[in-house]
This record gives sequence, structure tokens and C-alpha cells, in this order.
Amino acid sequence: MAGNTIGTVFRVTTFGESHGAGIGAVIDGCPAGLILSIDKMQADLDRRRPGQSHITTQRKESDTVQLLSGVFNGVTTGTPISLFIPNEDQRSKDYAHIEDAFRPSHADFTYQQKYGLRDYRGGGRSSARTTAAVVAAGAIAKQLIAQHRMQIAAFVTHVGEIEMEGIQFQSLDNLQDLVTIAESNIVRCPDAQLAASMIALIESIRKEGDTIGGIITGVIKNCPVGLGEPLFDKLQADLAKAMFSINAVHGFEYGSGFAGATKKGSENNDVFFNDGERILTRTNYSGGIQGGISNGMDINFRVAFKPVATIVQAQESVNARGESVTVQGRGRHDPCVLPRAVPIVEAMAAIVIADHLLRDRGARV
Amino acid sequence: MAGNTIGTVFRVTTFGESHGAGIGAVIDGCPAGLILSIDKMQADLDRRRPGQSHITTQRKESDTVQLLSGVFNGVTTGTPISLFIPNEDQRSKDYAHIEDAFRPSHADFTYQQKYGLRDYRGGGRSSARTTAAVVAAGAIAKQLIAQHRMQIAAFVTHVGEIEMEGIQFQSLDNLQDLVTIAESNIVRCPDAQLAASMIALIESIRKEGDTIGGIITGVIKNCPVGLGEPLFDKLQADLAKAMFSINAVHGFEYGSGFAGATKKGSENNDVFFNDGERILTRTNYSGGIQGGISNGMDINFRVAFKPVATIVQAQESVNARGESVTVQGRGRHDPCVLPRAVPIVEAMAAIVIADHLLRDRGARV
Amino acid sequence: MAGNTIGTVFRVTTFGESHGAGIGAVIDGCPAGLILSIDKMQADLDRRRPGQSHITTQRKESDTVQLLSGVFNGVTTGTPISLFIPNEDQRSKDYAHIEDAFRPSHADFTYQQKYGLRDYRGGGRSSARTTAAVVAAGAIAKQLIAQHRMQIAAFVTHVGEIEMEGIQFQSLDNLQDLVTIAESNIVRCPDAQLAASMIALIESIRKEGDTIGGIITGVIKNCPVGLGEPLFDKLQADLAKAMFSINAVHGFEYGSGFAGATKKGSENNDVFFNDGERILTRTNYSGGIQGGISNGMDINFRVAFKPVATIVQAQESVNARGESVTVQGRGRHDPCVLPRAVPIVEAMAAIVIADHLLRDRGARV
Amino acid sequence: MAGNTIGTVFRVTTFGESHGAGIGAVIDGCPAGLILSIDKMQADLDRRRPGQSHITTQRKESDTVQLLSGVFNGVTTGTPISLFIPNEDQRSKDYAHIEDAFRPSHADFTYQQKYGLRDYRGGGRSSARTTAAVVAAGAIAKQLIAQHRMQIAAFVTHVGEIEMEGIQFQSLDNLQDLVTIAESNIVRCPDAQLAASMIALIESIRKEGDTIGGIITGVIKNCPVGLGEPLFDKLQADLAKAMFSINAVHGFEYGSGFAGATKKGSENNDVFFNDGERILTRTNYSGGIQGGISNGMDINFRVAFKPVATIVQAQESVNARGESVTVQGRGRHDPCVLPRAVPIVEAMAAIVIADHLLRDRGARV
Repeated sequence: MAGNTIGTVFRVTTFGESHGAGIGAVIDGCPAGLILSIDKMQADLDRRRPGQSHITTQRKESDTVQLLSGVFNGVTTGTPISLFIPNEDQRSKDYAHIEDAFRPSHADFTYQQKYGLRDYRGGGRSSARTTAAVVAAGAIAKQLIAQHRMQIAAFVTHVGEIEMEGIQFQSLDNLQDLVTIAESNIVRCPDAQLAASMIALIESIRKEGDTIGGIITGVIKNCPVGLGEPLFDKLQADLAKAMFSINAVHGFEYGSGFAGATKKGSENNDVFFNDGERILTRTNYSGGIQGGISNGMDINFRVAFKPVATIVQAQESVNARGESVTVQGRGRHDPCVLPRAVPIVEAMAAIVIADHLLRDRGARV
Repeated sequence: MAGNTIGTVFRVTTFGESHGAGIGAVIDGCPAGLILSIDKMQADLDRRRPGQSHITTQRKESDTVQLLSGVFNGVTTGTPISLFIPNEDQRSKDYAHIEDAFRPSHADFTYQQKYGLRDYRGGGRSSARTTAAVVAAGAIAKQLIAQHRMQIAAFVTHVGEIEMEGIQFQSLDNLQDLVTIAESNIVRCPDAQLAASMIALIESIRKEGDTIGGIITGVIKNCPVGLGEPLFDKLQADLAKAMFSINAVHGFEYGSGFAGATKKGSENNDVFFNDGERILTRTNYSGGIQGGISNGMDINFRVAFKPVATIVQAQESVNARGESVTVQGRGRHDPCVLPRAVPIVEAMAAIVIADHLLRDRGARV
Repeated sequence: MAGNTIGTVFRVTTFGESHGAGIGAVIDGCPAGLILSIDKMQADLDRRRPGQSHITTQRKESDTVQLLSGVFNGVTTGTPISLFIPNEDQRSKDYAHIEDAFRPSHADFTYQQKYGLRDYRGGGRSSARTTAAVVAAGAIAKQLIAQHRMQIAAFVTHVGEIEMEGIQFQSLDNLQDLVTIAESNIVRCPDAQLAASMIALIESIRKEGDTIGGIITGVIKNCPVGLGEPLFDKLQADLAKAMFSINAVHGFEYGSGFAGATKKGSENNDVFFNDGERILTRTNYSGGIQGGISNGMDINFRVAFKPVATIVQAQESVNARGESVTVQGRGRHDPCVLPRAVPIVEAMAAIVIADHLLRDRGARV
Repeated sequence: MAGNTIGTVFRVTTFGESHGAGIGAVIDGCPAGLILSIDKMQADLDRRRPGQSHITTQRKESDTVQLLSGVFNGVTTGTPISLFIPNEDQRSKDYAHIEDAFRPSHADFTYQQKYGLRDYRGGGRSSARTTAAVVAAGAIAKQLIAQHRMQIAAFVTHVGEIEMEGIQFQSLDNLQDLVTIAESNIVRCPDAQLAASMIALIESIRKEGDTIGGIITGVIKNCPVGLGEPLFDKLQADLAKAMFSINAVHGFEYGSGFAGATKKGSENNDVFFNDGERILTRTNYSGGIQGGISNGMDINFRVAFKPVATIVQAQESVNARGESVTVQGRGRHDPCVLPRAVPIVEAMAAIVIADHLLRDRGARV
């Protein structure tokens, strides 16, 4: 049973391959009556677009989104919204050398073994290009949850060994200042000085023909209390699943995360207090989620990306006949995927939150 | 829309509360023809059972599992398997003090807000007692995947600041030696010396009326190539979701994990080679999964648990009317949940793998 | 992939076999805050119970329902509701003669072929006894939709060739008078005279050792406008599916049904008018559903049941080894299943409506 | 929660409106390795296409299908297959008169009430034009099940009062002769003489500006034993649901159907025998399904269609403000939908069977 759908009420199904006609999605379950800005969808796609700066792949794609259904006079009708992003710059011949070879740490081998054949051009369905559909769908989710004053943002906080201190989101009134800084540099780090160091590191890595990993920090502000469906569809569980569906993600933590494993309960508990308007916690080691349900505090999380697998250096491998071969990156790839992954992380988070916002409507009689 | 089911083909739905009649599950989609040992189910329940050692809660529960359907003459019939574990030692009066108060870092507040009411006795549905049903269901999944020579094991590798070096699973023929060591000490660490230190730490923490977090390392050996359903139901995504549905889990990583975020592609890539029998990788930073699909190498992962929220020390809080109150742990709780969580992690992993084993049957014509 | 769950938001999963420990269900997705009467659940079970009159099977079952979870102080908590009905009068030896033989028009052959083995005692999972769980779950759904003033009722309107004229539900203020008549006779026909004829026919059929089919007419009054989810989950589609999941059902129609196939558009269209309070249709050939969505008129439908397959007369058949055998009914069975099927039809309709009531909450922003 | 997906393993999600960019579908779960003929897909679309004869609507649409993903070098890859059929002949101004009026027995009123707004052009999403996507997806399902020697066919057997005697499918070696006759006349009746009468009737109805209903008979030959997933996903239940999702369908029966309601068990039972090669039944009142599972006999069923709601005659109605209005058909519509519905019925049946074929792979260890 295939797995190209995410969400249960706000359901996103994506399709398309790196070098086919294009990439698309069907969103079923978006409520009627939402005024939908296609410009906002395009703006997020532009943040994910290849070739946006000199530290990303130079593949040329305008990634122009088309709306095929579900919207009438600019408003959602409650019927499925479909969108399509045509592929433009397909140099499929770049991939002739891997028609028969398995690139290390790519999905070539596993797709071939699972399905008995594969579209080898640019990784086919396993290409990160498929995340364009996620970003477009996420931009719809963002517009839905914006109706509830919620904000979602993500930032590059670590590249290689360069790391930014934990951001105290809860002390911020809103996320706009951070977003402004992050979006004003090409690595999308909310600390301008660190951003410069990260960019320098990525440039140096690129010259080596190598790649580098990093961490994206995400935050959801103004999430209403009550989202999340225990036992198995806890909010953190669905966020984790969504993040791990992004190519190259190898780790996810929220709230106190892995550091919490070393703590005592007396250090890690978040005590409640009433600020006169609502019930809050003095600290937020819970990361905005308790018992799988949002508690109204900022939801914060970190997503770890391994370095991109395609490197220019020659690597040993085998081919489909089991023979030894040498493979060497020739396609156009990113030295560091993090800057372009920021809108993907936001999109995934938005899809999860939109879904749980609608799911929660069934909680009470 | 509620979320008490996990899995798509091998589907587990659990029910029950800490202080109700009992805890149970329905497993729909277990294939017919599996010889089912209820003793093996009970054995795993015994590993999760409270009161099994002096470093766990002293609640007395035999956790005896009853099979209510789906098995005839000891063999599964393809109809839903239901199981029930009656509650025995319910001291509901222990919880009268929290009928109206929200315990810090528990689910009291969020359940109350989401549903408008809650079964406050022992946390009701939010109690970790519900994992008994998961362990029993997982023990069925384990028997299913054992037919394919697969092994699943989990170990306590970190308690507080005490940590065990990464285990090189791939170099082991099987997991039995590690399991034997781990199961011979009450903390379930596969290093006997570290186990003694961990036990001493937990004893000391308990005396303080405090709790401590830690990390469980899991491994799946002999997983066939091809399990996992991209895009969204990647094997690591479903494993992550399953782990984050366990109470107290705040982090998950697989393969190179968070450490991979600091690495270069040339350091982190797993090159393929042919050992004469099959295609393997020389390293396993991919953690046995590439492109969301198992590649035949050992699947390894780490699960971070925050410290248990219930502590004996008095903590400030608020009640349902928003008034300030003081709460203090009175129920019987674990100073460190890790030793009892080992079979839960294994069960969750087994459920995910069993589900994907069956899902993969649809991959080819 | 097994199929023991019905509903998407109000989800009912049943389990159990005719001669196992009992029959049960888990209802996930019932909203919190519903005051639940177990007496009403029992009352519907009593209407389905065997041995309730001399024209039903004489198997003795009290069919006493137990609530195992999801209800606290008489109110639903939003967590899964589980219920269990123990089996009491199991004469499994009655079925030794069919351990190896396939009863004509039963599920013995198909279960054996599909699963490779079967619980032959009383049909195991294929027994109509499993509908007890449906009736109990439906009684919860009924209480949920009663909050919206909706009424659901079903009646026996045909037994063999004896048929009742179409009832003009729309002209009735409520269904109570019809229900009172129907429930005052053992065949559950809302026409007392026809009921007598039907009972006489069934008595005569029983004496022949034979069985007889019939039709149940169902109605849903006061259904709000807007339930149903086109394209595929149209309200009539989900009602049809629910009814065809009942043992022995071979036909379903709503509104003008099969008779509509002979009509012209000018005869069959329902024109709209405004009665000053709301928009109605002058006729109701649409059966209360247009475009898959309820239009506020009474939803009416007919369900055709074939005669029960178990007859006392000897019939030729084959056994599992493909050899010719003779089988003859020996268990305790119904000469006409219709009277006991009335609450099953109601329950199925209630589950579908409850589900769509909750699904509709996602229709608008 | 929206409902634009059908199937659980072979999953079809459709999108699109009558007067938007076009109609499309995503098929997730089609196994890899199927050689896919787009010509066969187009051939079925041509059978559904408007304007194919003088007894259908004269809307001009080539209904040319485009494959956007999931197929590489003519073979399915196991990734989602997406298809798109652009709309061509959109005379949206034909519908200006109903922007504000509710056509009798259409979905205008219910869509408006459910969603708060609607795309009124040609019925928008409620238009039967959406079945083009179903036909295209069904043509993929047909190619999948053809690998198992299965045949699916449907025929117009009743138009108005003109009815064809029950066809004895089981006595036929294959369906080709019937298909040849049916496809050689524009009404798709497998009896050439009756076809002429039906055509004459439809011509006369069209001249009146009226419409007429009818019945389509479907058959599935060579279905393997074992398809169907009791309890709720019985094969007949899923077939019924699929058929009731087709616009205008008001009745469904299989095997003995409504006629079976008047029969005795001794008349209606299908006794088993062994013909030396396999186990068969002497009669087939069960319609090829027992206990919800296919028994290897021909699956046969009837689908009743009400007359098309759009008629040229003036009809009273109300508008969105509740005022009385008169509406009169002006768009281009079918006097009888049956001839064009034949490939839709086949497609729906094929999708259900393909889904259950794949689901059955999970039945045994």
C-alpha cells in the first residue's frame, strides 16, 4: 500500500518525478470559503526554488504553480484543490551514467529492489524536487491556519559545526523580526553574523565538491490549546512523521529533546501559572505539547539534515548486475540543502497543524 | 477525528484507561495462519509490568493478557484479534487530590481543555499504562516478522549523563548476546558495568523524590530490502511517529542522526559493495534506510525520554478554576521509565515493521 | 488489508466470533461530553436478541453489554469507547458436522479458501451474531444524533410476497406512531393486519424447515441539510455500503429506487418551494439526498434480504477435500431474519449519519 | 472530512470541475511493472465522451487524457499515476441563469447549503463530467486485473419500461460476443432488437424535452475465489458504494437481489458441486459472492439510474434568497444517461476489484 498522502482531514496527495512532466498535488479537505492567494503560494515556492543564490544548485526552474481545481473566484469551494508545477530544465542526459549504477546514500538501490525498475533520471520520485508540491500545499495550509492568528517559521540554526544558541521564542511577541533577518541572508539564519560564517563554510565546501549537513529550528506561535489526537496521532508524532518524510532528515526533537534525557524531573517540569488571562507554563521544556496535545505555548522543534549525498568526488559502488563501478556526481546539486529546506519544514508543519485544527472539531459534542 | 489506531494494513487500535476496567487492543489485518504464542505475549508484558524491580513503580499489576477473538486452535484466522488486560490494583483515591489540579508537565491541563472533562484517575487515557496494550499487540507483530528471520531489540544506553558508546550492531551475527546481558540486569543495559552505575543513579534519584531521563537504542536486524512507502510513509517516518506516540519521548534519530548534521557528504556517505551474496554498504550512516526504504543493513535508532513528570517534591500549579495550588506526587510512579520502556520501544518498532512487511506486498504486479 | 472498521470520524471496529469468548467493538471518535445511556444500548440489543419470540432462533443469549472504556461518570470522555457482549449459549458441538463441509450459500467455502482455515463453529466470524456489536455501537450513534433532533427507524414492510404499500413518511410529524405499532408485534411491521399475515407466513415456513426473505424500509427524519461528502462518500453510497455489510442483504435502493429507472425526468424531479421557514421539495423522489448530500427531506430507503441459508432440508454439497457430501441444518436458526434485522438496519444507518454529522464539521472555514 | 478518494490499496483520488481547467485523478497504489496502454484508457474515455451519437448531449469534448506521472517507458513504476483531461467546450454563459437558482433534483441547493458557495457553471464538481476521471482510472484498473484473466463488462438492459430478460452469464465462456453486440449499437444493449426499441424511445423522449431512466447490468467473469474483506468491506458492499457514487444511481442489487426477498431458502440456495477441476455452485443466486467474499462464480449486479434531472420544460423552483423562480434547461444534456454510463459502471467495478485483488495479498502469512 503506497504512501503518497499525508493528513487525515486536510489530506495532501502528491505526484510527479524529477524529470517527468512536472510535480503536483491534490489537497482534499480544505474547507470552503478560504480566500486563497496564489501569490503567497508562489512566494514560498520561490524560497525553495533552485538557483535562488550561488550556494544552491544552478538547475533553472521557475517553479510556477498552476491551480487546476477547487477554487472559484479566488475562494476555495470545498472540492479538491489540485495544483501543478511543470518541470522545465530537465537535462535527463546528465543522468545516463546512473541508469545502471547505484549512487551511494541515494535511493537508487532501494527503489530498484522494491519496485523492480526505476525512473533513474534525477532520482525520479525520490528526488527532493517532489518537495515543491509539499511547499505549494503547505502554503495553502498556512493561509488556513493564519485565520487563527497562528504563525509558523523555520530558520537555519546550524550548518556543520557552526551553531546558533537556542532561541527564546516564548519571549517574542511575534516572529517577524527573526523572519526579516533570516530572509535577508541567503542561508536563512536569523543571526546575521552567523549567517555570514555559514555562507563562507558552504562556499568552501562547494569548492571541495563536497556537501555539509545542518539543523533547522522550527516554531509555531499562537497555536490554540487542544490540537493533537492521542494516543497515536499525538501532535509531536505527526510533526515528527512529517519532518522525517523530508529527504535527508535524520533526526527530530521538540521541547527539551535529547538534552532532556539527561535532566531530572525537578529541572525539566514546566509549572503552570495564571497570568490573569490564561494558563501558561513558566518554562517550556514541553515544547508546547503535553500528552500529545498543544498547551498554548510555542511549539518548537529541531530537524537534523545529513549532508546531501551527491558529491563531485568519485565513489565506489555497484550496478544493477552487482558489478563494481565508480560513480561521480554530474547533475546540478546543492552543497548544503538547508537554505532551501526552510520553506519545506514550514510547509510540513503547516500541513500537520491545519490537519489537527480540523480534526479537533470532532472533540466535543 | 480521534487517533487511537496505528498502522494501515497491520492495524492496532487500543482502548482503556489507567483506572477503568482494563486496557485492550484490537489488531485487524494480522494474516491468517500464524501460530500465536500467548506465552510470548505475556513474557513481553512481564518486562513492562510495574513492580518488576525496586527501581520501578510499586503498583501491583499482574498484567495478565486475555485473547478474546481472532485465534482458533492457537492459529490466527485472519479475523480481528482482540486482547484485554484487566486493571487490578486501582487506588483511585490516590488521585483525589488532582481531580481539580493540573500536574506540571502532565496531560491533565490539555485533556481538560480539549475534551471539556477528563478521567483524572491516574491520568486516565494519558497514563503510560495504556502502553500495556501496545506491548501485547507488538508481541503479535514480533511473531509475524520472526517468520522472516527478523530480530528486534532495544536497550537502555543512556540514563542521565551516563552514556554507552554506540554499539556496532552490523558486526554482530545476531542480537542474542546483547539481549542476554541486558535482560540480566534490571535497567536493561547491555553493558553490565554501566548497568550497575545506572541502577545506582536511579536509586539515588528515587531517594531524592526525583526522576531522571535517558535514551533507548533500538535495532532491527535482518530486515528485508524494500520496506517503506515513499513519499510520506517512509520507514523512518513511521518509526519516528510510532516512537513519539510513547509517553515522555522527546527525540528520535536514526543512522547518523543529529551527529550527521555536522558531517560532510564525503564522510557520511555509505558506499555499496557486493560481498558475493548480496549488495551491502561499507558503513551504515544511513541506519539501514535509504530514500525511505530499508536497504538490508541493520536499522538502528535512538529514542530520547524526558524524566517522568511525577515527582514527590511540591510544585506550584493551577486548578481548573485558574486558581494557584500546590501539587505533590502521591501515586506510585517510576523514578526512571527507561527499563520498562524497552519492550514498548520494541513493540512499536515491531508494529511498524509488520505493517510495512504487509504493505510491501502491493509493490509489484 | 482487513475490513473490520466502518466510518471515518465516528469509527466502529468490531471483533469476535459466534462461538468464541464474545463479540465486541471499539468506537473511536465519539465526541466527549455525550451523556450515554447503557440502558438504551441494552434495549436495542434486546430487539436483536435471539429467542425473543417464537418466530426467531431459540439460541439463548442475554446479550448483556459491558462498557470497558471511554465513559467516566456516565459521560463520554473523547477516548475510545469499547464494549463487550459475552457469548453464553454456545453449543459448538452442533457444528461438528460442518467442520469439514461447506453449507450451501454460507461463507464456509469462501472463508476456507481465502484464509486457508476457518473457525467453523456457528460460522465463526461470518455469523450474523457479529451484528450484536453493530447494534450496540449504533445505539451510541443514535444517542449522538438525537442531540440534533434526528430520528431513525426501520420497519419490516415485506415478507416473501406479502408487501406493504410505500409509507408517506414526509407527511408524518414524527415516527413515534409507526414505531409503536411495529414494536407491538413480533415481526416489526407498522401495519398490524399485515403483521399478522407475515407472522402466519413465517410460522408456516418454519414448519416446512424452510426460510423466507423480505424487505426492511428505513427512514431518517430531521436530518440537517448538508450531510454527505461527494464524490465517493456520497451519503447514499455510505448508507448502501453499510447496509450491504449486513448478512443476507442483496439489494438497496433509496428515493425512487429501481422504480425510478422507468420514469421520465418530468415525473421524477422534485421541485423546490419555500414554505416560509425553509426550502423544501414538493415530492421526495430524491429520497432526501441530492448530489450525495442530504437536502433536509426525509431520507428513505429499502433493504432486500435473501432468505436465511440454513434450512432443515438436506442439501448436496462438497467438503474441503472436494468430495460430495450431504448437509442438513442442525443449529438453531431463524426462519426469517427480518424481525431481528430491524435494529441492525437502524444501527447501521445511525453509524453512517453520526459519521457524516462529524465529517461535515470540516466543510467550511 | 472530504470524500474524493475511493479504494484503500489501489486508491483513486479525483479532482476537477465541469467548467474549470479540466478533470483529473491520482492513482496511488498501482503496483510497479504493469505495461500500461494509454490507448486503452482513451478507448474507454471515447465510450463515455459526449457527442458520440445523436442520443447523447452534443457538448463537444475530445476528452484526451494526459499521463503526468507514474509511468516510465510505458511501464508503471509504483509511484503515483496522475492523469489530466483538459476541458475544451465550456460554454459557461449557458449557466448564468442558474447562478442564483436551484435546479430541481440537481445538487445546486445542497452544495450551496453545505459549502456556503458553489461553482454553478455546469454543476461544477457535481457534474457527471467528473466521471471522466473515473473512467480513465478504471481503465488502469482494468489492465491490472486483466493480468488475472478477469473480464468486466456492463450493458444497458433496461430503458424506461423496455427491459431485457436476465442474461445467463455463467453459461458463457467469455463476454466477447455480448460486448460486440452491445458496442455495435449506440445504446449499448446486447440485444440488437431491443436496442432499436430503446433508441427509438430515447429519440422520442428527447423530442419531448424530457429524459428517461434505466438499468445497467454488470458482470465480472473469472474473478478469483477470495476477494472481499468482511465484515464491513464485503465485496458487495464496496461494489454498492462505488455504484452509488455515480450520479443518478438510485438502486443496486446483486445475485438474486430484490427478487430474492420473495424467495424461500430452498429455492434460493446455491448448492456446491465439484466439476472435477474446481468447486462450483449449480445456481448463482449468490451473484458470485458469499459471506462478502467472491466464490469464483460470475459476479453479476444491476444498477438503477433515475432519469437525468435537466429537462427542457419549465419548472418551478426557488433561488438562494428563497424567492420563487422558474428554471428551464438550457445547457447541453443527455435525454438518457445510460449509454454513456456503461464505461463508468465498468470503471467503478474495475477499481473495486483491483483494490480487493491487492488487499487480498494480506490474507495469509
